[in-house]
Amino acid sequence: MVNRQFVLASRPDGMLQESNFRLVETPIPAVGEGEFLARALYLSVDPYMRGRLNAVRSYAPYVEIGQVMVGGGVAEVIESKHPQFHAGDIVNLPMGWQEYAVSNGTGARKVDASVAPVSTAVGVLGMPGLTAYFGLLDVCSVKAGDTVVVSGAAGAVGSTVGQIAKIKGARAIGIAGGKAKIEYILNECGFDAAIDYKSTSDYGAALREVCPGRVDVYFDNVGGPIADAVLGYLNAFARIAICGQISGANDAKPATGPRMFRHLLVARARMQGFLVFDFESRYAEALAQLTEWVRDGKLKYHEDIVEGFENLPRALIGLFTGENIGKRVVRVAASR
Amino acid sequence: MVNRQFVLASRPDGMLQESNFRLVETPIPAVGEGEFLARALYLSVDPYMRGRLNAVRSYAPYVEIGQVMVGGGVAEVIESKHPQFHAGDIVNLPMGWQEYAVSNGTGARKVDASVAPVSTAVGVLGMPGLTAYFGLLDVCSVKAGDTVVVSGAAGAVGSTVGQIAKIKGARAIGIAGGKAKIEYILNECGFDAAIDYKSTSDYGAALREVCPGRVDVYFDNVGGPIADAVLGYLNAFARIAICGQISGANDAKPATGPRMFRHLLVARARMQGFLVFDFESRYAEALAQLTEWVRDGKLKYHEDIVEGFENLPRALIGLFTGENIGKRVVRVAASR
Repeated sequence: MVNRQFVLASRPDGMLQESNFRLVETPIPAVGEGEFLARALYLSVDPYMRGRLNAVRSYAPYVEIGQVMVGGGVAEVIESKHPQFHAGDIVNLPMGWQEYAVSNGTGARKVDASVAPVSTAVGVLGMPGLTAYFGLLDVCSVKAGDTVVVSGAAGAVGSTVGQIAKIKGARAIGIAGGKAKIEYILNECGFDAAIDYKSTSDYGAALREVCPGRVDVYFDNVGGPIADAVLGYLNAFARIAICGQISGANDAKPATGPRMFRHLLVARARMQGFLVFDFESRYAEALAQLTEWVRDGKLKYHEDIVEGFENLPRALIGLFTGENIGKRVVRVAASR
Repeated sequence: MVNRQFVLASRPDGMLQESNFRLVETPIPAVGEGEFLARALYLSVDPYMRGRLNAVRSYAPYVEIGQVMVGGGVAEVIESKHPQFHAGDIVNLPMGWQEYAVSNGTGARKVDASVAPVSTAVGVLGMPGLTAYFGLLDVCSVKAGDTVVVSGAAGAVGSTVGQIAKIKGARAIGIAGGKAKIEYILNECGFDAAIDYKSTSDYGAALREVCPGRVDVYFDNVGGPIADAVLGYLNAFARIAICGQISGANDAKPATGPRMFRHLLVARARMQGFLVFDFESRYAEALAQLTEWVRDGKLKYHEDIVEGFENLPRALIGLFTGENIGKRVVRVAASR
């Protein structure tokens, strides 16, 4: 048996290319004491991955040339010498872009298949759902009556943010690109209003139209001119979570833009960068709540499933060109 | 008796000019029931005043053309029909740029002349001191061992920030312009290190030299390229208070600069704009503490006293050209 892996072939210079990855075949490693072997069912592609490809200091080590690309997956345990994981278990684990991985259990958790497809363990019931949960509830301290604006609103995180805002009695306004995404967040996710940034030249005017009472909470997934417009339209004591900056993710050089700090001063606003990993001690609480909302039909999700291990690089690149609605995952092997 | 006043003659277009103000003479108003008449001893000039001259939405109403310029003062009550204020009392009140003001007591407080000169009621024992206190302790949650960087470090607020940082067991690094200011913050205020931005072309390199362990707290009074350099050099979970943005205060158009939000994300940093007025319910607590520190010699202050009511506009303009060390006040009449 061989293990197919994608390794980093070269560092992207600007926009990510398929050629930055190389498909290699290696032997499947032996399972040691206290370890298990898992076979990938679904592998995740996420915007944060772009940052791991630059050789610059960040919150996590970057991927070395020749190293297997990092990422989360949903896998089936096929052999185990680990006391807590058994053959047949479905697990979510940081296995990287490969078909098989040996794990000692670090960062792995069993997936409950009774509520939703196991693929949601890297979606609404996994990292993106947790990111929305902690970002909106803890970082932004959302409360009933708030006007919440989220960018990247049709993505895995953004679509969950808007729905949690609604659950908490806030007003949800989504910013996304294109008619299909706008229809998705309005009709499927129940957002109160939406801005299609692709058909709007004046983001500020569009905001004033859909939220005349200004913005109390901004959950930023994109940065750039869209974020600028929202920051110019804050209410006093607004809260802003910096979750992602996808608009500049593939820029070869850092972009420039208008200086925005004066807006924070005038509004006495709080802006905070956050990573879901910093909330790890509370994952169980959050997953229980997210699972309950999904079970009760209060929290919808959409999966954009790309077929085939070999399509991982293309699937990731598509995140930055706006292809996906909801959570994009790559199906690697048939689920049970 | 006449009352001399400075009114706003025209809105500044870019850099503030003396001609934007006009000196007028008006009768001293009569004192009604529940009011008192006060004669200015010291009038304050502060960076925030520049923002009040633009006809744009901000946290406070802007000054109308023909209206008396706003500002705080220290004054002597010379006639009173108010139950709490009596002739001879020294008061701090928002009296504007005029020699005499009638007040109903709103925003007025009696000044204790036993600890420090009464002029400090608009300095270290007034709004600037309170701004440093709440900004560093509440907004930035400073703690022992933190590396604290403050810009505008030789000013009324900045010099107090650095000293409170030291009192709390943090390391204080000041950024200021020119040799005299650097000597003041190092030798008088006890900062651990300083950066003279006027003799440094690479702010980032200068920071790496004086704080190799990166920055935990940044108290920003200036914005612009200095703030950019600090934001590129944050520790995880850094806290940033946006207190002022004096570097761009006189710009006719909003400036552009590198986009900085990714730095907040990578560092999971919290940036917050704040106004001292939002802490009004805790002024008494803070003034008691600041007074104790001044009395014990732990908190030094320097006053830059400009003589003569007629010099108010020039004194204010000088704040933006970096003339002052410590708190600049204008002496209007002899103190008791």
